[in-house]
Amino acid sequence: MSDSTSFLEIPVGLEQIREAADRLSGLAHRTPVLTCSALDERVGASVFLKCENFQRIGAFKFRGAMNAILQLSDDERRAGVVTHSSGNHAQAIALAAKLAGVPACVVMPHTAPSIKRQATEGHGARVVSCEPTVADREATVARLIDEHGYTLVHPYDDWRVIAGAGTAALELIEDAGPLNVVMAPIGGGGLMAGTCLATAGSSPSTRLVGSEPSRADDARRSLELGQIQPSDNPKTVADGLRTSLGSRPFAVLSRHLERIVTVEESEILEAMRFIWERLNLIIEPSCAVPVAALLAHRVPEVRGARVGVILTGGNVDLDPMFQSLAERWLGEGR
Amino acid sequence: MSDSTSFLEIPVGLEQIREAADRLSGLAHRTPVLTCSALDERVGASVFLKCENFQRIGAFKFRGAMNAILQLSDDERRAGVVTHSSGNHAQAIALAAKLAGVPACVVMPHTAPSIKRQATEGHGARVVSCEPTVADREATVARLIDEHGYTLVHPYDDWRVIAGAGTAALELIEDAGPLNVVMAPIGGGGLMAGTCLATAGSSPSTRLVGSEPSRADDARRSLELGQIQPSDNPKTVADGLRTSLGSRPFAVLSRHLERIVTVEESEILEAMRFIWERLNLIIEPSCAVPVAALLAHRVPEVRGARVGVILTGGNVDLDPMFQSLAERWLGEGR
Repeated sequence: MSDSTSFLEIPVGLEQIREAADRLSGLAHRTPVLTCSALDERVGASVFLKCENFQRIGAFKFRGAMNAILQLSDDERRAGVVTHSSGNHAQAIALAAKLAGVPACVVMPHTAPSIKRQATEGHGARVVSCEPTVADREATVARLIDEHGYTLVHPYDDWRVIAGAGTAALELIEDAGPLNVVMAPIGGGGLMAGTCLATAGSSPSTRLVGSEPSRADDARRSLELGQIQPSDNPKTVADGLRTSLGSRPFAVLSRHLERIVTVEESEILEAMRFIWERLNLIIEPSCAVPVAALLAHRVPEVRGARVGVILTGGNVDLDPMFQSLAERWLGEGR
Repeated sequence: MSDSTSFLEIPVGLEQIREAADRLSGLAHRTPVLTCSALDERVGASVFLKCENFQRIGAFKFRGAMNAILQLSDDERRAGVVTHSSGNHAQAIALAAKLAGVPACVVMPHTAPSIKRQATEGHGARVVSCEPTVADREATVARLIDEHGYTLVHPYDDWRVIAGAGTAALELIEDAGPLNVVMAPIGGGGLMAGTCLATAGSSPSTRLVGSEPSRADDARRSLELGQIQPSDNPKTVADGLRTSLGSRPFAVLSRHLERIVTVEESEILEAMRFIWERLNLIIEPSCAVPVAALLAHRVPEVRGARVGVILTGGNVDLDPMFQSLAERWLGEGR
C-alpha cells in the first residue's frame, strides 16, 4: 500500500467492538442467524445468514448510529447531531437520537423518495434538503454545524459507526460457531470494516471477502491501486452501495480484507429473489450482493466450508407490488 | 355441545406433543420467535411471532407430516403414503417422505398451479391429478389406497398431524415465556387443535383465540352450532383456510378454544403488507389472518398483555412481482 490513508491509525479492535456491544445491549436487536438447505446445496457450503434485515429500522445501520450517539458528551448531546443520507443511515440516526433524547438533523437530497423523508421525520428528526451533489451536501452539513453546533455522525467514515457495525459479525461468530469465510457487501465500507475488525479479533484464521456490484466496484479498484478511487454516480440496483469508499474503511480493508468479488446486476436480482422465495426473507438489492457472489460460484474457497454472510437490510419500497396484489386478489373475490 | 363428534376421545396431550418434538428434533427447524416494536405499538400488546414461515418447505405443515411418517410401521413404510393437497401439506408430505425413505403419492386437482405440482414432484413424490371436487378427490385417494396399500396421512384430520403441529406452540411458549393469549388461523383446524393441546397442557391459564376470514368462517359457525358446518368453496385470499374444519380438530376446539374472531379480505391484505414492510418477513395471506385480527383490535383482551401468534407460512407466488421488478430495475440501468 503506497497511499498514506491506508496507514491511518486504526483505533478500533475487538475491545472497542465488545464495548459497543455492551452499549447496544437492550437497544439493538440480537438478530437471528438463519440457514437454508436449498441455499447450502446451490452454493456447496454451509451458509450462515446474519439477519440484520430484522434489526431496528430494518438494517444494520442502527448499530453504528446508536453506538456513536451513546458516546456523545453532555454538551454534544444538548446541541444534537447531523448527518447526510437518503437511505438507511438517515432513519438509523433519527431513531437512535430519539431513543437517546438527542436532537437530530438529516441532510437529504431533494430528489430522495418522499417515503424516506417521511420515515426519518417520523422518528422526530429534522430533514434539511440539499442539491443532489456531493459539494452542496457537504456545504449544507458544514453550514448546519456552524449554525447549530451539531456533531457530525458520518454514515461510514467514523470509528464509532464502524465499531457499532462490527457488533453484527461478533454476534454471527458467537452464534454460528467457527467460520472459514465471512462476507459482506461494500458501499462506503463501514460495515465491511467493522466486520473485518470483529472477525480478525475474534477468529483470526477466518478469511474475509468483500463484494460489490461490478458497476460500483470502487472499493475493489481502490484496494488494487492502493488509493481511494471515488465512484461517479454508478448505475446499480444496489442503491446502498453507490457511495464511495471512506478513508477509515479503506485503511481497515487494506489491512484485513483478502479480496473483493464483483457481481452483475441480473445476478443481484436473482439472488434477491432466491432469498425472498426460499427463505421468506425480504432483503434489499444491496443486501443480495454477497449472496449473488456465492450463488454465482465466484468465491471458490467456500466449497465445503462454513461461510457467514451479513444480510444488511430489507428496506424495499413494496408499494407497486402491493398495489398490483390488491387489484388481483381483492378484485377476484368481489 | 350436542354433536357426538365433539365427544370424540382426544388421544393427544402434552405428552404426545413432547414425543413429537423429540421425533422432529434435528429434522424440523426450531424457528425463531420475533418481536417488532411497531407492531406492539399498533396492537397495544407485546406480540411474539413464531416464524413457521422459516420452517422447512416454508410452513408449519412439515411438522405434522414428518411426525406422522416417522410413526409408520415397517410394512406401512414399504407400501408408502398418500395424501390430498394442492398446498403446503403436499410439499410437506413429499419432503418428509423423502427424508424417511418412504414412497409418497399426492392427489392434487388438475386445476392446481403447475408450480405446486413441480415443487411436490421436486421432492420425489408422485402426483396424481383429480377433478377439483371433494367427491373425485376422495374416490381417487380410495382407489390409490386400494391399488397400492398406501397409508393415508390426512392434512389435518389425523392425530399424528395434530400432535406434530402442536410442537410449534410448545416451542413458542418455551422461547417467549409466559403468554396471556395464543392465536393461530383455522382452516382444517389441525394447527389450531395442536396449538390448543400444547398450550392447555403447558400453560393452562393462557387464553386460546382462533381466527378466520369472515368469508370462510365455517369453524366459527361450527363451534356456535355444536356441529360441523362445511364450507362451500369460500372466496378468500387466504387460500390455505378454504378447507372445512375436520372432526378431530372440531372435538379439540370445542373443548379448548375460547372463541374465533373473523377478519375482512382487505384487513388480511393490510396485515400481510404490515408484516412484509415492518418485519421484512414474507408471509402468505392465510398467515396474516391472526395479525389482521390484532391490528383491527378485534381481540380486546390482548391490550397490555403478552400474545403469541403462530405465523403459519410464507409460500406466495412471487413471479409476477419479480417480473415487474426486473423490468423496472434492470431496464433503468441499461
